Amino acid sequence: MSGDIVRIESRSGTALKLKRGQHLEVIDLEGGQVSDLLAFASDDPRESLSNGRTFDYEETIRLTTGSTLWSNRSNPMLKITHDDVGSHDFLLTPCSKDTFRHFYPDKPVHRGCFGNLAAALEPHGIAPDDIPCAFNVFMNVPVDGETGKLSVEPPISKAGDALRLEAQMDLVIGLTACSAYASNGGTFKPIGYRVT
Amino acid sequence: MSGDIVRIESRSGTALKLKRGQHLEVIDLEGGQVSDLLAFASDDPRESLSNGRTFDYEETIRLTTGSTLWSNRSNPMLKITHDDVGSHDFLLTPCSKDTFRHFYPDKPVHRGCFGNLAAALEPHGIAPDDIPCAFNVFMNVPVDGETGKLSVEPPISKAGDALRLEAQMDLVIGLTACSAYASNGGTFKPIGYRVT
Repeated sequence: MSGDIVRIESRSGTALKLKRGQHLEVIDLEGGQVSDLLAFASDDPRESLSNGRTFDYEETIRLTTGSTLWSNRSNPMLKITHDDVGSHDFLLTPCSKDTFRHFYPDKPVHRGCFGNLAAALEPHGIAPDDIPCAFNVFMNVPVDGETGKLSVEPPISKAGDALRLEAQMDLVIGLTACSAYASNGGTFKPIGYRVT
Repeated sequence: MSGDIVRIESRSGTALKLKRGQHLEVIDLEGGQVSDLLAFASDDPRESLSNGRTFDYEETIRLTTGSTLWSNRSNPMLKITHDDVGSHDFLLTPCSKDTFRHFYPDKPVHRGCFGNLAAALEPHGIAPDDIPCAFNVFMNVPVDGETGKLSVEPPISKAGDALRLEAQMDLVIGLTACSAYASNGGTFKPIGYRVT
């Protein structure tokens, strides 16, 4: 991998363009942090990442090297080509003012990954209501197969661990350093990425 | 429950309005059938059912009596008030022409629940790209908590089994009798519903 590592500061987000065939590497710079990833088709952002279509076609809720992330129109958007961690979540939505009020009633309300993604994606013509479930890189969400119960646990990623994805079409990507308490064990660390 | 039972014929779908406080009962008339359920806010259909927000707030992927189904704007849409079956899916998207081509390459392509829902919802100003993951009533999708692998098994619902939901806001509902082979064990049966 070449390309400079860009740093997403604590509790913030960004948007970037990724051409078909380019790779996006998401790097946990300090370890134990989560990055919410969104993808939209460059030529029509009404086509976006779909957890349901991905679960349909991949026949698993655990995505790792070799898995494809699919769009709501049943097209491949991203393929995972390298994964140091093997623990990511595609069930849950980005944290938001509402999730802060719900889960942390005694703590200050933050606009969260949802607000950070909405702000970063607005210049690309993407409205808040267009934001689907994110692919939550490094997020550790065990699911009990019997009861269906899920919990949000601290990530198992270590400093320098990376996930690499290859764009299957031209994309607008949204990416955050997660703002919620539970998903990163109460720390708010930066996230790194690079494009090659 | 009063109200006449309406029959959704095999491999078709419908749309209906549900006022806040009304109950929708989905009835498996013959047993072993699935019904894909969508919900949109009547006053702004950009607010719609969200599997991710529901998994966030309910902290489970298994929804049954007492569970609330949430919108993408973090508002309660429907509350499950009665459940004869206890086995429903909220992971997978409605079957479509694309899923037929993918899973049943040797069988005739059908527009599926997705096409049926899109046609039924169009008069309500809802476009195909606005269709989120459905709440798949009676759909039997075991998930292996360790590997994440999922499979689509025949429903365990028997003739007459019902799921009842109470509207938490004024809603436009989309509802189908499922068209896919796997989800109803290769049968294509009708589904019943009534509003009270």
